[in-house]
Amino acid sequence: EDQELLLAAAYVSDAQYNRNVPFETSPQAIRLYHFYNHWTMRAATYFFIWVNLALALFEEPAVFPLPFLVTSIAEVLCLTAFFGRLVHFAKVTPQKVFWKDTKNICVMVTIVLTLIDLVIYGSLEAVNIRGVRWSRALRPVFLINFPESRQIRRTFRSIRNTLPDILYVFLLFLFSMMIFSLLALKLFGDRDLRTVEGSPYFTNILDIAFELYVLVTTANSPDVMMPAYELNWWYSLYFITYIIINTYIFMSVFLAVIYNNYRKHLKNEIHTLAYLRHHKMTEAFNILKVKVGTEFVVKEARWRRLLKVVAPDVSSSHLELLLRISDEGQKGHVDKVNFLRLADLLNIRVVAINIKKHPLETWMPRVYQSSTSLLVQKMVQHRIFVWVYDVIILINAIFIALDEKDSLISYAEWLFLSLYIIEILLKLYTYEPSAYFGRKQFWNWFDTLIIIAALLATVANTTIQARKYNSQQVLDIVLILRILRLLRVIVSIQRFRVIVTTLINIGPTMLTFGGLVLVVYYAFAIIGMEVFHGKIHFLDPGSGSPDALVCGNPALKDSAFAQGRYCKNNFNDLASSLILLTELTVVNQWHILADGFALVTHQAAKLYFIGFHVVVVILIVNIFIAFILEAFFVAY
Amino acid sequence: EDQELLLAAAYVSDAQYNRNVPFETSPQAIRLYHFYNHWTMRAATYFFIWVNLALALFEEPAVFPLPFLVTSIAEVLCLTAFFGRLVHFAKVTPQKVFWKDTKNICVMVTIVLTLIDLVIYGSLEAVNIRGVRWSRALRPVFLINFPESRQIRRTFRSIRNTLPDILYVFLLFLFSMMIFSLLALKLFGDRDLRTVEGSPYFTNILDIAFELYVLVTTANSPDVMMPAYELNWWYSLYFITYIIINTYIFMSVFLAVIYNNYRKHLKNEIHTLAYLRHHKMTEAFNILKVKVGTEFVVKEARWRRLLKVVAPDVSSSHLELLLRISDEGQKGHVDKVNFLRLADLLNIRVVAINIKKHPLETWMPRVYQSSTSLLVQKMVQHRIFVWVYDVIILINAIFIALDEKDSLISYAEWLFLSLYIIEILLKLYTYEPSAYFGRKQFWNWFDTLIIIAALLATVANTTIQARKYNSQQVLDIVLILRILRLLRVIVSIQRFRVIVTTLINIGPTMLTFGGLVLVVYYAFAIIGMEVFHGKIHFLDPGSGSPDALVCGNPALKDSAFAQGRYCKNNFNDLASSLILLTELTVVNQWHILADGFALVTHQAAKLYFIGFHVVVVILIVNIFIAFILEAFFVAY
Ligand code: NA
Repeated sequence: EDQELLLAAAYVSDAQYNRNVPFETSPQAIRLYHFYNHWTMRAATYFFIWVNLALALFEEPAVFPLPFLVTSIAEVLCLTAFFGRLVHFAKVTPQKVFWKDTKNICVMVTIVLTLIDLVIYGSLEAVNIRGVRWSRALRPVFLINFPESRQIRRTFRSIRNTLPDILYVFLLFLFSMMIFSLLALKLFGDRDLRTVEGSPYFTNILDIAFELYVLVTTANSPDVMMPAYELNWWYSLYFITYIIINTYIFMSVFLAVIYNNYRKHLKNEIHTLAYLRHHKMTEAFNILKVKVGTEFVVKEARWRRLLKVVAPDVSSSHLELLLRISDEGQKGHVDKVNFLRLADLLNIRVVAINIKKHPLETWMPRVYQSSTSLLVQKMVQHRIFVWVYDVIILINAIFIALDEKDSLISYAEWLFLSLYIIEILLKLYTYEPSAYFGRKQFWNWFDTLIIIAALLATVANTTIQARKYNSQQVLDIVLILRILRLLRVIVSIQRFRVIVTTLINIGPTMLTFGGLVLVVYYAFAIIGMEVFHGKIHFLDPGSGSPDALVCGNPALKDSAFAQGRYCKNNFNDLASSLILLTELTVVNQWHILADGFALVTHQAAKLYFIGFHVVVVILIVNIFIAFILEAFFVAY
Repeated sequence: EDQELLLAAAYVSDAQYNRNVPFETSPQAIRLYHFYNHWTMRAATYFFIWVNLALALFEEPAVFPLPFLVTSIAEVLCLTAFFGRLVHFAKVTPQKVFWKDTKNICVMVTIVLTLIDLVIYGSLEAVNIRGVRWSRALRPVFLINFPESRQIRRTFRSIRNTLPDILYVFLLFLFSMMIFSLLALKLFGDRDLRTVEGSPYFTNILDIAFELYVLVTTANSPDVMMPAYELNWWYSLYFITYIIINTYIFMSVFLAVIYNNYRKHLKNEIHTLAYLRHHKMTEAFNILKVKVGTEFVVKEARWRRLLKVVAPDVSSSHLELLLRISDEGQKGHVDKVNFLRLADLLNIRVVAINIKKHPLETWMPRVYQSSTSLLVQKMVQHRIFVWVYDVIILINAIFIALDEKDSLISYAEWLFLSLYIIEILLKLYTYEPSAYFGRKQFWNWFDTLIIIAALLATVANTTIQARKYNSQQVLDIVLILRILRLLRVIVSIQRFRVIVTTLINIGPTMLTFGGLVLVVYYAFAIIGMEVFHGKIHFLDPGSGSPDALVCGNPALKDSAFAQGRYCKNNFNDLASSLILLTELTVVNQWHILADGFALVTHQAAKLYFIGFHVVVVILIVNIFIAFILEAFFVAY
């Protein structure tokens, strides 16, 4: 009996959380499976995944250096945890399924490779040879391949399904670039033209192809056109044609293909998920059903026990509500149709709304209902009240913009704060406090928290000024908190609230997206650090050292990289690498960064940057746009 | 009887071409209406519109200067033509409708304003004062407001309908920019930081707002971040947050809002058009109907006469086909349902496919059917034949890339051409020529035309080389034609053909889009020329004059504009202005261009460039992307 309940509960849980893991139905396996899905185990897995990823902060080239011994022990610990998780999973799932699942193979291969890499690197280290920690680029494999990261895998799958369609567009795009490169070589190659920097213009087919690829990203427009344009305005037509075809049409086609696939894929996924959920709930029903009259049902008592296992935290009133919905006729049992809905019902958040009297009304009804009090309440509810406070915020913004060394202005600071606190108090006087701070009253919470933050920040600021304390970071955070109060304007304008609410609602899926970006960034950052680290250094220009002007590398002399003071954009640690990759994602000036790193290594280094552009900007950013398009399409 | 036919024909024509013009039904008005819609009248209107727009090439500041007298006479001529067209329209349409239509009022007001402007400018000219020809910016009004430009007006309407939704997103976006500007002022303003150029960094709130607007367009990334990033890597988080919120999220939301509205609007338009078409066809039916038995029908003879009026060019076989479809039972009349379909039927292109024997087979069946001949035909139809020619094209591309001064290579040129011609001949030998060059055989035509062009180009090239003739433009065109033959690869790869066919199919609508862009570009170009012309000059840097280095304007000394050798990017004539506006559309380095023009005039000049960005990049480019997205969505 208990075994059946546990098995049914496992099915219902899987249906509720859209899990799709085949598991053994032996009593021991079911208990292990429940344990496998327990939040502590999942949290522990994520903890080790993050520790493992974060190791790059402490390994050479490090932001916070630690000896190799420490980081390698930490890594072995993480690997052990991953291996343990895998063994746990193997005990739960049928052997055959386990060995057929690419995810498990991936994790195992990565563990073995990492161990091999650690041993080799450690041995080389022992004899003072610096090796390459190549297996670090594989670390995101753990983030992707544990069953917890279903969402990220889904996005990856979506990208993989798009690739064949994208591939042909990309080939056609390369073909078009080739034709234009040949044209450029023939049209401009023999003209003895010079770029602004004085180097020969469009004489080498490989250089031309790179320049034209950069032009697709618009990063060297209009500079790349100017020498030809100066010769004859007619030649600008070549570049305009190129930009229309390759930048506008091709890049839009990439987005179109990705967006189409994304939608198609999304529809399929939703269908599959719904099917699997239905299938699992049917399994659960078949386990628990008994025959009453002509139909199979689940008895109320059993249903209650099931819910205690599936959702132990559910409140008794919530449970009664669920039962009332599932057993409409109050027959003492739940039929199949209603039982199958349970997974969906469990996913619905229930908000208890209590229409209570204002506590002041209960305590002193006379005063609260007096004409003055009613006038105040009416005033607070009036639109003009909102407008007055919008104006106050506007004036506040102007005061913030002004110089705050003036003592009058720092007094005004306190005035504004008092006004905001009075506003909150007036609102709490008018509206019932527990309803005002209800669970769904996001904007009221937002408003109040911002004011409390601003209050704390202003108090902190005064204390700091009085004590001449000056940790720059604390000062900066205080400052930011004080300015963020202006966000209150969003709360008072309905249309703004709608837009922000839409954005906040897609936040959780956006996090998935963040996971995807992290995986790709991490792999590129590790590769970048192995290849480029130490080639470019940021030296304080104030030191007056001539090395500072060429980022510590004479190969950068007279380069646009050094002249643009880009020395800080290097791969010398994980933080710098990630910031540099962000700059590459924004695209602008990426060719100067690529050129800089090509100068200090080899021209082939540009392939790293082109590869990053194709993967991140053409694929991932377009997926992001597709995702926002779809989210707004659904929300509107 | 004839009058009725003409009236019905007018309705059918309007339904066929989706025209929506109320017209009087008096016999004279109908005849005038037919004349109004005649292609010669429409062509004449377009001719005058284009002449009027093209005047900007000849007026000060001119690409090809003409005296004011000549251009003003031409302009008056155009205005007369427009006025005539309007009078013609007034005679056709009911008075009340005419005066209620904004389009007509717009055209009239623009004519009057232009005349006033001409008179004022002419008078000032007579006393040697240079006035401002402000009415020229209104010229696109004619392009938009004549009933011919329905498509462009539809796109404008779509934009106008999107504006309210966009407006709130834009306000929220400005609000976010304001908050970030305040933060930047407070975080970086007092740090005594310097940009690469040595100017103070983030000290003035207006400069900060401009820099941050530029950062939304990514044009000053990562430069704008570097001084703060050098101080502390922590500050890069400020810029990354800004870019994620304002560049990625807000810009995607703009696209999402525009795309959503575009789709909604498109659906509505299609519904309205279908409704109007149905309505007009019903009107036509009601005019022509007679009662046969219990139902109203149109007799065959009358139907034939109607078609002769509506589509005088239709071939007799096509007419019989239409009749066969419309009168399925061959009862000698067309019923209502079938009659209403006529407008759609007329819009369907009919392609006659003739399955003829190959002429050679008729002339000499023995030879053509001999085993050798059959082998050749089989070979040509084989996939390997296509691959061999792909390889030949590839080798050809390599030869083109190589230096052609080598005589061996210029001989190879002829070899490749012969190979291509042999290919075409072999295909004509294998496939029936009139089928091969059928109306729908776009790719065969494409292939053949490219080879003929290459042949002509190579012959021309040899002639030119022999005669030492050297007009650079002719040489360039010959060169381009010779390289374009590589496009043949597209023909042989199925997937490429599909993508290109999709793009070609959306070509006509793309032209509408071109009209829209032209209207906006023209207005901005005229304003730009009035405000900025003559401020910046391109002087040959070879002259060694110091003025050449500052584009003839000392205000540009040490500016990024002059250092980037951007002098040719000016508003000194229509061609330069349009090229400059294209560069601004591409966005990259637009802030340097804006800065340059602000330096030679006033900081407020930046508003012109920001306005252009908002209108063209945020609105129009996004409409373009929406349009490609939708086209691909429908095509796939
Ligand atoms: Na850019």
